[in-house]
This record gives sequence, structure tokens and C-alpha cells, in this order.
Amino acid sequence: MAEKYYGTVEAGGTKFIVAVADEKQKIVDQARVKTEDPESTINNCLDFFRKYALKSVAIGTFGPIDIDKHSETYGFIKNTPKDGWSNFDLKGAFERGLNVPVAITTDVNASAYGEFIARGKKLDKSLLYITIGTGIGGGLMQGDKFIGLNNHPEMGHMVARKHPDDKFVGGCIFHKDACFEGLAAGPTLKGRTGIPGEDLPRDHETFKFIRYYVAQLLFDIYLTARPDVMIVGGSVLTEDDMPEVRDDFALFMNGYFDGLNLDEMIVRPAVENNGSAVLGCIEMAKKIAK
Amino acid sequence: MAEKYYGTVEAGGTKFIVAVADEKQKIVDQARVKTEDPESTINNCLDFFRKYALKSVAIGTFGPIDIDKHSETYGFIKNTPKDGWSNFDLKGAFERGLNVPVAITTDVNASAYGEFIARGKKLDKSLLYITIGTGIGGGLMQGDKFIGLNNHPEMGHMVARKHPDDKFVGGCIFHKDACFEGLAAGPTLKGRTGIPGEDLPRDHETFKFIRYYVAQLLFDIYLTARPDVMIVGGSVLTEDDMPEVRDDFALFMNGYFDGLNLDEMIVRPAVENNGSAVLGCIEMAKKIAK
Repeated sequence: MAEKYYGTVEAGGTKFIVAVADEKQKIVDQARVKTEDPESTINNCLDFFRKYALKSVAIGTFGPIDIDKHSETYGFIKNTPKDGWSNFDLKGAFERGLNVPVAITTDVNASAYGEFIARGKKLDKSLLYITIGTGIGGGLMQGDKFIGLNNHPEMGHMVARKHPDDKFVGGCIFHKDACFEGLAAGPTLKGRTGIPGEDLPRDHETFKFIRYYVAQLLFDIYLTARPDVMIVGGSVLTEDDMPEVRDDFALFMNGYFDGLNLDEMIVRPAVENNGSAVLGCIEMAKKIAK
Repeated sequence: MAEKYYGTVEAGGTKFIVAVADEKQKIVDQARVKTEDPESTINNCLDFFRKYALKSVAIGTFGPIDIDKHSETYGFIKNTPKDGWSNFDLKGAFERGLNVPVAITTDVNASAYGEFIARGKKLDKSLLYITIGTGIGGGLMQGDKFIGLNNHPEMGHMVARKHPDDKFVGGCIFHKDACFEGLAAGPTLKGRTGIPGEDLPRDHETFKFIRYYVAQLLFDIYLTARPDVMIVGGSVLTEDDMPEVRDDFALFMNGYFDGLNLDEMIVRPAVENNGSAVLGCIEMAKKIAK
């Protein structure tokens, strides 16, 4: 049979989502693989992919990973608390298992790339994608190039200025309450209220802290790289939170910039149902297919 | 006479430094022009340049400036408290006055570019240049490309987390003590001690705050763009401060990264006597010369 499909892998700490798409970016099959030890996880993914004649595969993965193409460990997971995954050759495992070219980047870079595609590949614009979920991470593009040449961004661990009313001790194992992940990732909702985030009413006042820190994080990244659009992904905030994130962003500006259209600048993903990363991976796979 | 020289302009709030260099990057003449109203300042610069047969000119200027090449006001100074300079066509003034091609970027981008040249034009590396002077600013490059496509960075106004012992009310007219410029630019030395920074003994304890905030700023930018080298320019800190800046950077990491060689990553400029911007401008002028 002729190779005509592209494989995509969203590698996460609790699950791997694998999918197969055709030339028209249509997803023809999809599966969810539980993240266990590397060997069984990868084998389950390979079993799924072997039903299809693939041209290539692209992976968007949890980090940290080695993205330096000149490195001997290019495509390896680096030091991680996830049991067995440190120093695992994720890219190589798919290359050897499927014998096709494999592209790899971070999950958030894949999402940023998907949004870049969905928004019309504007080469004269810069784009930021951040996710507020179990952790906080970001991918940044200038035109069609990722920012972060030999190492990928780790924006969730940037230093945060605390909201004056926020007494939370923080949840980052490295930085406690000194970084954005420690103050605004999903688990901080339970950390502050005792109630799991998914059970909190959406109008609970603790979300004001999340919005405040997300706005601060966006402001800091904006001042570094001046993205034209900043996309807030992940499940912790919703479209309804965006107006207040924009208001908080304006408070951080405090008149330093004028004329910014925050309604267009700070937005939720254009691709629905968390599909940005899959779309990004499909396009990455297309680029490396022979 | 044949055109063989390149003109450079370092446009600052108190002075414009103008220079003429030959093909071999050798500076053959240099002058200092006081920053007054735009007309007299520019005329004094033009008088200096008209003695030479120039191929082109490059400007590294205070900001904010319009760096969007598709904009009708490309090369204009934007809103600034400096009297008369708001909305001034800085690029056009030199183009019309000298009838040569003119390149323009921020002062810190010009310095970053000069350091990129001085360090051997490493296209596989990213480089950050920050200046700690009257204000705080930064220029960021990935290979030979500036980060900040349609607008330039404004890193000095990123949100800072205050040192627990620092009681200073802050000096930023926009953000008081909430940004790095308000907490660590040169004038904050007098703000904290009552003594002008240039009269303070170099071992005065107030410098510990400057080093702390500079380390925090570098850490935040590092997490966004992962520069391979971060250059601390400007007159507020010296080579002797670098070890403690590196130590503070390590405290912000708190084990999140390992294996970073901070001695090589956090450094003073390779070009001596604040010459990074002039070197950057010479190279920018060369690139646009016919």
C-alpha cells in the first residue's frame, strides 16, 4: 500500500494522544494511550500506528527535551521526575519502531505551530501560545520560526510578583510561590481552596488570582518578544476569563503602551477542543515527509 | 571623491555619538552632539557627517521607535517624554540630509548586533544584550535575527518580584517599584541612598539589590528565549559584580536547570569602552550600502 498518512503524538504525563491524518489534515483515527513506563507506552503507540502506511510522524511532548539538532541526545527527554523517562530517546523510539522520519518539539511549540497554521501562516507576525493546565508552559514563534534555538522556553517558571491579597504558599516544587506555575497552574486552585479545580464554580473568587498571574506572565513575555497575538490555552481559564485577563494586562501596562488592541491580542485558541497541537503536528509531519 | 565610509549614530537622551568608519571597521572620526531639540541636534550631526563621502548610515537610538518596515511611520520616534521628539522622523532626517541609505534599530539592538559580530557571528546561538544605565533595556537575537518583529522589546518594564529587604518606593514613572527599571536602573542608587550612583563606593551594600534584580531579569528572559549568552552592559554594574549576579541567577533557578555554565553565559561586553553599539551600527551600515 502507498504511504499516505501522517502520524501525530501528543506526549503528556498522564496520556499519549496518537492520531493519524490524511493529506487534507483530516484525522482518520485517534487513540489515547496511558502513560506508563516508556517501553509499554511506546509499544502501545506503535501498535496503533502500525495499522497505517505512514509517511512521517511528529511529536509534541512534555519536557524538558533536547531540541538541539547538533546534540547527541537530540530528541531525548531530559531530567524529569516521571519515573523511567529521564534520558529516554523519544524521537528515536518512533523512528526505529516505524522506520519513518520523525519530527519533535514541545507540546506548547506544537500548539503554537497549530495556531500559526490555523491563523493563516502570517510570516510578518509573532505569536505566543501559553497553556494553563496541570503546569504552565509557552511556545513562541516569530514568523514560522520557534524562539528558543538550542533549548526550549520554560515560561511557567519565570519569577512572579505576588498579588497583595494572595496568601498561598505556592505549589512549585522548585520555586514554591515564586513562579507562575507555583501560583497559577491548575493544582493551585485546590491548593488555595481545598476543592479540586474541576469542582470549583467558575465564578469562584480564586480565579481572580489565576487571571492576575496569567496577565502578568503575558505582559512579561510581551515586553521580551512583542508577539502580535497571545493565545491562552489549557483548561484552567475559559473565554469568559479573557476580559479580566485583558483588564489586568492593562493595569500592568499602566499607560506604558497606548493603542494596543487587547481584544485581538489576548485570545483563546482558534482551533477548538484542544486541537492546536494535533494540527501543528500534522503540519510538522508534512514538512519532513519524503 | 569615491564613497568609502560608513556613518554611525548612537542616539541618546543626553547626547548623540556620531562616528565615521572605514571598510575595515576602523573609526576614523567621532564626535559628541548634545541632545537638544530635533532640528539643531540633527543639523549638528549632519554637519559632522558632511565632511565625509558616506556609503550609508546606521542608527541605534533611544526608544520607543517604530521598527515595523510596513508602517508609514517606520523609523519615527514614538511617544516620548523628551520634548519635541515624539513622532519625529529620525531615519528620514538622515536620509534626506545625507542622501544615503539609512538603517535604524534600538540602541540595545545595535549593541546586541555588535556583540554578535565581535563574538564571531554564531548563527546557531542566541544572544541577549541588556544595559543597566539611566534606564534598563535589552536586545535579543536568534542567529542574526532580532527578536521583536513589528515592535522592539521593552524588557526594563517587565514585572519584578521585590527583594524582601528592599524598602525602596521605586523610580519608574509608569510602574514605581513594580518593574526592573524602577528598581535597578542607575537613578535607583541615589533613590535608595541619597548619594548619586557615580559617587557611591563600589562595595556599597545597595548594589546587592541591583545584582539581585539583574539576575532576576536575566532569569525571566532566559526562560522565554533561552539565549546561549547574556551580556550585561551599561555603567551601573562592572565585571566585579558578575560573580554575584551569577550566584543570584542560580538561586532563582533553585535546581530547575542543571549543567549550565553561568561563567560563560552571564558576561560583560566583549567590545570594550561601550563600543558594542558602534560596531553593530558599522555592520548594519555595511549591509545596506549599495
